Amino acid sequence: MLKINDALNLIAANNNLNSLLEQMTSFLMETSSCEAITAFIVDRLSGKLIFKTIKGRSIDEETFYERINVEKRIAESVLSKQKPQWFDENDPSEELIALRQIYFGDLQKILAYPFFNQSTPLVVILLYNPAADIQPLLEQTASRLCTEIDKAIEIELKDFRISRLQSLIDVIRQLGATLDREKLLRMIIDYARELLNVEACSLFLVDEQTGDLVLQLASNVDVNINQAVEQVRVPAGHGIIGYVVQTGDIVLVENAGQDARHYANVDQKSGFETRSILAVPLFSHTLILGDKLGKIKERIIGGLEAINKIGGVFNEDDKHLLSSFASQAATVLEIARLYAESNELFLDVIKALTAAIDAKDPYTVGHSQRVSDFSVEIAKELQLPPEDSQQLRIGSLLHDVGKIGIPDAILQKSGQLDQIEYARMKEHAIIGTKIMGQVRMLSNELPAMAQHHERLDGRGYPAQLTEAEISLFGKIVAVADVFDAMTSNRPYRKALTIEEAIEYLRGEIGTQFDHACVEALIRAYQKGKIQTQRGT
Amino acid sequence: MLKINDALNLIAANNNLNSLLEQMTSFLMETSSCEAITAFIVDRLSGKLIFKTIKGRSIDEETFYERINVEKRIAESVLSKQKPQWFDENDPSEELIALRQIYFGDLQKILAYPFFNQSTPLVVILLYNPAADIQPLLEQTASRLCTEIDKAIEIELKDFRISRLQSLIDVIRQLGATLDREKLLRMIIDYARELLNVEACSLFLVDEQTGDLVLQLASNVDVNINQAVEQVRVPAGHGIIGYVVQTGDIVLVENAGQDARHYANVDQKSGFETRSILAVPLFSHTLILGDKLGKIKERIIGGLEAINKIGGVFNEDDKHLLSSFASQAATVLEIARLYAESNELFLDVIKALTAAIDAKDPYTVGHSQRVSDFSVEIAKELQLPPEDSQQLRIGSLLHDVGKIGIPDAILQKSGQLDQIEYARMKEHAIIGTKIMGQVRMLSNELPAMAQHHERLDGRGYPAQLTEAEISLFGKIVAVADVFDAMTSNRPYRKALTIEEAIEYLRGEIGTQFDHACVEALIRAYQKGKIQTQRGT
Repeated sequence: MLKINDALNLIAANNNLNSLLEQMTSFLMETSSCEAITAFIVDRLSGKLIFKTIKGRSIDEETFYERINVEKRIAESVLSKQKPQWFDENDPSEELIALRQIYFGDLQKILAYPFFNQSTPLVVILLYNPAADIQPLLEQTASRLCTEIDKAIEIELKDFRISRLQSLIDVIRQLGATLDREKLLRMIIDYARELLNVEACSLFLVDEQTGDLVLQLASNVDVNINQAVEQVRVPAGHGIIGYVVQTGDIVLVENAGQDARHYANVDQKSGFETRSILAVPLFSHTLILGDKLGKIKERIIGGLEAINKIGGVFNEDDKHLLSSFASQAATVLEIARLYAESNELFLDVIKALTAAIDAKDPYTVGHSQRVSDFSVEIAKELQLPPEDSQQLRIGSLLHDVGKIGIPDAILQKSGQLDQIEYARMKEHAIIGTKIMGQVRMLSNELPAMAQHHERLDGRGYPAQLTEAEISLFGKIVAVADVFDAMTSNRPYRKALTIEEAIEYLRGEIGTQFDHACVEALIRAYQKGKIQTQRGT
Repeated sequence: MLKINDALNLIAANNNLNSLLEQMTSFLMETSSCEAITAFIVDRLSGKLIFKTIKGRSIDEETFYERINVEKRIAESVLSKQKPQWFDENDPSEELIALRQIYFGDLQKILAYPFFNQSTPLVVILLYNPAADIQPLLEQTASRLCTEIDKAIEIELKDFRISRLQSLIDVIRQLGATLDREKLLRMIIDYARELLNVEACSLFLVDEQTGDLVLQLASNVDVNINQAVEQVRVPAGHGIIGYVVQTGDIVLVENAGQDARHYANVDQKSGFETRSILAVPLFSHTLILGDKLGKIKERIIGGLEAINKIGGVFNEDDKHLLSSFASQAATVLEIARLYAESNELFLDVIKALTAAIDAKDPYTVGHSQRVSDFSVEIAKELQLPPEDSQQLRIGSLLHDVGKIGIPDAILQKSGQLDQIEYARMKEHAIIGTKIMGQVRMLSNELPAMAQHHERLDGRGYPAQLTEAEISLFGKIVAVADVFDAMTSNRPYRKALTIEEAIEYLRGEIGTQFDHACVEALIRAYQKGKIQTQRGT
C-alpha cells in the first residue's frame, strides 16, 4: 500500500496532462494484471470524449480506429451512468460483440472506469481482462489523482487559450500593418481559418448601394471553388450571414442543412458541403480621425463565416476568438478604405485640375495624364520601387502646372510662338516649381516640374543642368513629355507616328535624353503599354 | 489517519490556489494544536515570497505589517535551507526577538515548514506553538497537497497571463481605431501604465532631423511634472532610452540610480524619482501600402519607458507584454502619421493651386484661402460636426477653381467688366462644378463650387436656385465669399471696413443671404476669429 502511494505521488508531480495520463496508465498496466488499457478524456470546451492513450496487447493498425470508436461508445455510456461497469464475455451489446471480433486476444471481460473530481467528469479508462479484485487499486488511484487530473486539464486548457490569444495578437499585428485591401481580405480569411482550425472561411461585405452582402473571398482547399463563388451575392437579411449582419449577433450552427437561415445558394454554386458554421459580424468600432477630421461611426461592414470545424465542434472560445478577430479585421478594413480614399481623392483632384489646365489649349487636352502614364511605365521598366513610381505619378501629372501662370494668348496661340512668347512659355517650369515648392511634402516630386525641359548636354531650361545634375524623375518626364508632344497633333503639324517619335528620341540619346529612359519607353511600347493621343 | 486522508482529498479538490491554501491552513489549525499560522507563497514570476494568509490568535492591526515582514525573513531563510526549522523561546535571532515582542500570546516555539514539489519551491508556513509531534501531520499534508499547490500556482499564473493578454487585445483595439496623433500618444502611455501597473510612463520619439529623442508625454500622478518635462530632449544614443532606440534591445533596470546609462536630466527637470525602469523600443513593422503605393520599411521610431513597478519588480512577462504593446503602438503611430500626411498633402496641394489661380489677378491674392477660413469659422459657430467642416474646408477652398477656364483678359481687367465680360465671368461657377464633378469623392463638396453665387430669393446664378434648393455649404460660402470681396481692395474701389461689410450682409438677410450663416460669421468675428485681407 505504501509503495503504491509513493508511486501515485510521483505520478501526481506531473503538471502536464499527457505525461500524467501516460504514467498513470503505465502504472495501472504494471500494477494490475490487465492486458490492455485505453484512456479517454472529457474535453472541457465541448464536453465530448477524446481518445488519449492506448496500451497493451493487440493494437492493430488496421482495426485501430474501429476499436477506438467502439470503446468511445462504451466510455460515453459509462460516463453518463457515473459509475464503473463490468462487461463480461457474454455481454450481448453491439459494442462488446464488435470488440470481441477486433481484439487480438481472448476478451473475457472489460472494466470501464470513470474518474470524477466531485461532480466534474474527467477521464474514462477501459481495462481489458483485469483481475476481479482490481477495483480497490483503481479507487486509490482515482482518489489520489482525480484532483491532479482536474488541475492538469485546467492547465492544458489555459495553455491552449494563451497560445490562441498570442496567435490572435500576432495576427492582429500583421493585419494592422497592412493598408492594401486585397491583401487584407486574403489575410483575414487565411488567418481566421488557422485560428479556428476550420475547413474554410468566407468573407462578405455590405454593398453600400444595394445593402446586399457580396462574397469577397472564400478560402478552400479547392481553388476552383473560389472562381465559382466570386459572383455570390446574398440579399440583405437573407441567410445566416444576412442575419448576423442585420442583428450583430454571433450565430453558431451545428448542422447547416437543418438551419432555416442557411442560404444554400452558395453551396450549390460552389459544390462545397457546409456542415457547421460559426458566423460573426464584421463590426468596425468608431474610428477617431482627429479634432479637425472628426470620426467615423461604428458600423457593421459585413460578416465572416468559419465553416466546418476540423475534428470537433465550435465552442464558446471559438465564438469569442472569431468575433474579437472579426472586429479587429473590420476596423483595419475601414482604415485601409479611408487611406485608399484619401489617396484616390488626392490623385483625382490633381488629375481634374491638371486636365483643366491642359484643356485651355485644345491641342494639349489629356497631355498631363498621358505624360504621367508614360512616366510610370518607364519607371516600371527601370524597376523603380512602387514608392518612387507613386511619387513620379504625382510629379509628372503636375509637370505643366506652371501653365496656370502663362497668358492665354500664348497658351492658345494657333501659330508658332515668336521668340518673346516662347521665352515667356518656357517660364512654366519655374512657375510650376514655385507653386508646388510651397508644399513641403512634394519635395521629391518637384524635379518632375523643375527639370522636365532640361537636357543632358546642358542646353535645356530653365537651369541648364547637365546629365549628372538632372534627377532621374527629370530625365524620365523629359522623355515622356517630348514623346507625347510628338505623337499628338499640333496647330503647326500633324502627329508623328510612334515609330517616327521613337526614332527621334533615339537620335537624341546622350544629348537631350537619357539612354535608359528612352530604351525603357520603347520596351513599354513594345509590351503594348503605351497609349498615345492617336491610340497605340 | 484515514479521516485525515479524506480531509486532504477534499482540500485537494480545489483548483483555486487561494481556497486551497485557506482550507489547508484552516485544516492544520484545527488538526494540530498550534495557536497561529501564516502562509507565504513563492511568486513564480519573481521568485520572491508573497504573503498569502494568516490565521489564529494575536493578529493585531497595528503590528500586522511588522509581523508579516519579520515572518517573511524567517520564511526566506527556511526556503533557502530547503528543510523545516524549529525556533525555540531562547532563539537569539533578531527575528525571534522581534516576534516575541509583537506576538500577543506566549511565544514558545515556531516551526517554519517549506513545501516543495520535487525541487520547485512552493509555500512556506509558520506555525506558532505547535505540538512537538506535529511533523508527521505536516509531512502527510505536504505529500498529498504539494503537487496540487504546484498545479494551482500554474493555473493562477496562466489566468493572470490570459487576463493580461485580453487586456492587451482590448488596448490594441482601442489604439487601432485612432488616427489622431495626440490622442494616440496619450492613450499609449495611459494604457502602458495600466497594463504594467507602474507609477509612470514616458514616450520618446526620434526627431528625424537631429536624431535626438524628444519626450512627447510623461504620465504621472502630478500633472505639473508634465509641464516641466515637455522640453526634454535626449541626444541620440544617450541614456537608457537612447540605448534602447539605438540597439532595439529591451532594457530592465532594477535601480536606475546605479545604472550608468540612466539619463538623470529628466529626473532633475521633473523632480520625479526614477527607481526601476523597463524600456522598450517603439519598433514599427513594415507597413504594406499596396501594389501601387509600395511599403514603408520597418524602423524604430522611438522608445517607451515604464517607470517604478508598483508593489514588485519587473519580470519576463512584463518585458514581453510591454514590447508587444510598444510594437503595436509604433505601427499605429506610423499609420496615423501616414494618414495625417496624406490629408495634409492633399490640402496643401489644393491650397497651392487655388492660390495660383487667385494670383492671376493681384486683387484676389489669398481670396480662396480666406473664404475657406471664414467658411470653416461659420461652420463651427453653426456647430457642424468636424467631418462636415472638413468637407466645407475643401469645397470652399475650391469654390473659384472654375476661374481656370476664364480668359485672363476678364480676370485681370483693371476696370469694371462690361455685360458680356460679366456673363463670361459668371461661368466660373459652372466650369468649377464641371472640373470637380469628375471627382466622385468630392460630391459633398461640390455645392460650394456650384452654389456660392446663388441667392435665397432665386436671383443668383448659375441655376437661380431658391432658399430651399440651396445647400448649407452653398449658403455658407456665399456669405464668406461676399464678405471677403467687400473687405478686400478692388481695382474699382477701396476695401470696406468690417463693420460696413457686416451691415451690408445684414441688410441682405433673407434676400441674398441665410440668416443663421450671417449671424454665425458675425459671432466668429466678435470672437476674434476672422482675419480679413486688411487684418482683423
